[in-house]
Amino acid sequence: MGEKIKALRERIGEVRDLGAASAVLGWDQQVNMPPGGAQGRAYALATLSKLSHQKAVSDDMGETIEKAEAEAAQLDPDSDDARLVQKAKRDYLKDRKVPNEWVGEFTHVTTLGYQVWEKAREASDFDQFKPELEKIIALRRQYAEFFAPYDHIYDPLLDDYEPGMKTADVKTVFHQLRQEQVALVQATAESGVEIDDAIIHQPFDEEAQWSFGVEVIKAIGYDFERGRQDKSVHPFTTGFNPGDVRITTRIAPKFLNPALFGSIHECGHAMYEQGVNPAYARTPLDGGASLGFHESQSRMWENMVGRSRAFWNVFYSRLQSYFPEQFGAIDMETFYRAINKVEPSLIRVEADEATYNLHIMLRFELETALMEGSLAVADLPAAWNEKSEQLLGITPPNDKLGVLQDVHWSGGMVGYFPTYALGNLIAAQLWEKILVDIPDLEKHLNTGEFHVLLDWLRTNVHVYGAKYKPMELLERITGDSLQAEPYLRYLKAKFGDVYGL
Amino acid sequence: MGEKIKALRERIGEVRDLGAASAVLGWDQQVNMPPGGAQGRAYALATLSKLSHQKAVSDDMGETIEKAEAEAAQLDPDSDDARLVQKAKRDYLKDRKVPNEWVGEFTHVTTLGYQVWEKAREASDFDQFKPELEKIIALRRQYAEFFAPYDHIYDPLLDDYEPGMKTADVKTVFHQLRQEQVALVQATAESGVEIDDAIIHQPFDEEAQWSFGVEVIKAIGYDFERGRQDKSVHPFTTGFNPGDVRITTRIAPKFLNPALFGSIHECGHAMYEQGVNPAYARTPLDGGASLGFHESQSRMWENMVGRSRAFWNVFYSRLQSYFPEQFGAIDMETFYRAINKVEPSLIRVEADEATYNLHIMLRFELETALMEGSLAVADLPAAWNEKSEQLLGITPPNDKLGVLQDVHWSGGMVGYFPTYALGNLIAAQLWEKILVDIPDLEKHLNTGEFHVLLDWLRTNVHVYGAKYKPMELLERITGDSLQAEPYLRYLKAKFGDVYGL
Repeated sequence: MGEKIKALRERIGEVRDLGAASAVLGWDQQVNMPPGGAQGRAYALATLSKLSHQKAVSDDMGETIEKAEAEAAQLDPDSDDARLVQKAKRDYLKDRKVPNEWVGEFTHVTTLGYQVWEKAREASDFDQFKPELEKIIALRRQYAEFFAPYDHIYDPLLDDYEPGMKTADVKTVFHQLRQEQVALVQATAESGVEIDDAIIHQPFDEEAQWSFGVEVIKAIGYDFERGRQDKSVHPFTTGFNPGDVRITTRIAPKFLNPALFGSIHECGHAMYEQGVNPAYARTPLDGGASLGFHESQSRMWENMVGRSRAFWNVFYSRLQSYFPEQFGAIDMETFYRAINKVEPSLIRVEADEATYNLHIMLRFELETALMEGSLAVADLPAAWNEKSEQLLGITPPNDKLGVLQDVHWSGGMVGYFPTYALGNLIAAQLWEKILVDIPDLEKHLNTGEFHVLLDWLRTNVHVYGAKYKPMELLERITGDSLQAEPYLRYLKAKFGDVYGL
Repeated sequence: MGEKIKALRERIGEVRDLGAASAVLGWDQQVNMPPGGAQGRAYALATLSKLSHQKAVSDDMGETIEKAEAEAAQLDPDSDDARLVQKAKRDYLKDRKVPNEWVGEFTHVTTLGYQVWEKAREASDFDQFKPELEKIIALRRQYAEFFAPYDHIYDPLLDDYEPGMKTADVKTVFHQLRQEQVALVQATAESGVEIDDAIIHQPFDEEAQWSFGVEVIKAIGYDFERGRQDKSVHPFTTGFNPGDVRITTRIAPKFLNPALFGSIHECGHAMYEQGVNPAYARTPLDGGASLGFHESQSRMWENMVGRSRAFWNVFYSRLQSYFPEQFGAIDMETFYRAINKVEPSLIRVEADEATYNLHIMLRFELETALMEGSLAVADLPAAWNEKSEQLLGITPPNDKLGVLQDVHWSGGMVGYFPTYALGNLIAAQLWEKILVDIPDLEKHLNTGEFHVLLDWLRTNVHVYGAKYKPMELLERITGDSLQAEPYLRYLKAKFGDVYGL
């Protein structure tokens, strides 16, 4: 490695260290922190983010990057170092546009915002959260202006989570998905097939839920030597480096899905980060290519694997042994149908695959309206309920089951939601390619050889971390740009079978 | 508040935020971190400590302090702001002597050192830890040289934990203590009184131990809204700010003392920090006056309260209800004597009050020899065993029960141990003053009114945080300098009673 690139790595390493420290503090805030710690934590996180930002956008950093660029020009443009310098430059140019004061204030507001949201959600009272959310949306609108001119005010936010993606692209793809998904949901409703999922809505011992979940995620490949699982109000994954990638889960005492499929989902995220080339630690190549790619991993494991017959061929007898009263007399096919019942519901993270993207569209439409200024925060609960009725045909009875259900906005994450839907599409595109490369994949999954799938993902996706831009990575792997068809094909095949369409 | 002092507070606030972040990462390392996280954590902590140090010793900081000093000169010299500026200046002058590179290296080495120590201790194999300890001692010797000239090479280290204290002072007071404590231990051995403490050495359900400990620390005043308790290999207290002060404990499956008295001990530390004036958050006045003062609080609650008859008048029936098999048929006096049995033993944190300081003297003598260079790290286990025989009359059968028992050195904490003994002395001096101010204290303790004691400590000690130097604070409260006699009087009275001397 050249001296100049080495110098850049060292300088960026410090910025990444500060990011890792913030991530630990954020994890702690959601998993451990007592109420009294909120104020001090907001200060600490604000200082960390300000310092990190100062270092990231300093003139020194600019000069270091420039010198490294000269050195990188001599290298294979696809080499790790050349890519590292490129990505460092892109990040630098973006970060430079944001004033340091904004960074500190945003971190402070969103750190306290999380605490307020948690209480407001518990109390199912949007008014408690409203003042915080108003501050957050105002800050987010300010943020977008730093990147003016833009095609759409939502673009700069989206780009943070899904580099290169535009609001217009999302609208196009959502338009295509919406028609077909609504038609599919309608077809299932009119199919005459009634699925009773009462068996997954009954009391399940919480410790047994925890233990079964741990057994499952160990079996599919989560490495507890380089991670851990805890409980939190809103499940999430956070990686400090490839050697320490943590997940959380939430156990519902009377519903099997949240802990089980939540754990598998987060495990999908975590295995992605555990699989990144360890040499990328403390560089901008660490972490995933984008949140869309991240969600492709989490939703692939949760749904394409976790809600498949193959998976339950392996695990159903284990589930029965954890919950003999609930499942001892139930055959696997009945269980399989119960966990794949299509029915519009209120909570995104508990939604079935056929309706899931509709939850995302709802949020995307509200977020873009908030950013455009055509929707006021005060009118958000009503707008939420109205959209819910339009898209899902149901109206939440209260804020907890509606507008307050997700953690994202409290942490300032506006522009994040579309990546869940993009993740579904990417997952389906990857899946079709995997089936070309491993034609007998189902045989392997049927016998619990999940490592065959994980190895493919490791080799083709995980190891590259953020080396490639997401759409570039997708094209390298599948030879194609982002497409809705593979996901629609997947949905139609799966639910066509379940509902006899 | 003047503008210049406000500017200083803001600047120092950032340094304190970085310190708080490091403390969270340190807590996490000992409580949660998976093995794979060690390398990344070492980098993150090194970067935080380097940045914090850079900010603390910058020319800007020097100028900010100078300007604040001019403003503070107009204030009452005992006002918080005047004291804050004074303490900031002292810290600055000390920190300036230490090169930034050393800080980063020291943090990196000690972060990894902790992981190595944990494994070496588990394996009871000093050789695994030796290379790390050699690095740590070499770094500590380097550190002392930054402060040359000194009276003794151990002085600069001691001063970090006990500002103003000299190695010679410690030697003098330890000399006085040693003779009297050895004589007391001998007198108990020759008293003809035999105490059987088998009742505290038997299996105790771990969950019941945890629950009883929590009940006790809640009753004496630990605020769980501003803290939490977890398990760790070596119990410790860490405060990020007065709103988040955490403790850890260690449960021994067949020995009642470690979890119970360990929890009370750490709770004593934590209540100190929870009681600091909240206005001192993010300033150098946050935290305790010194480690000696800190230990005075922890050891007062652990021993003077937790091992007293008054305390067990309140809690013994509760203990019996947690452990009916073990204590149902045992009267309180028998239990009281068992927890106050004097007997030289191997593990410091489990030592009785009469022999405890001997453990400290052992470490102090070894540490000063390591620093002087008259003892090599390679010879440390043998030296430990020899001193153990001299001071306690017993030789550890292995490294786990000997030289590897304490966490301190792995974290670079050389010079810390004497503060435990100083804490005993301070506690006894405070206790005599408390009995003057609250003559019926025992009556209150006998009925579980622990808040009477806590209120006195809050008002006279805790609230001041680090506003006063430790010996100044002691003098303000008791009217006297540090003395050994009150502690010796306390020991003789207590064990004279137990052993009928």
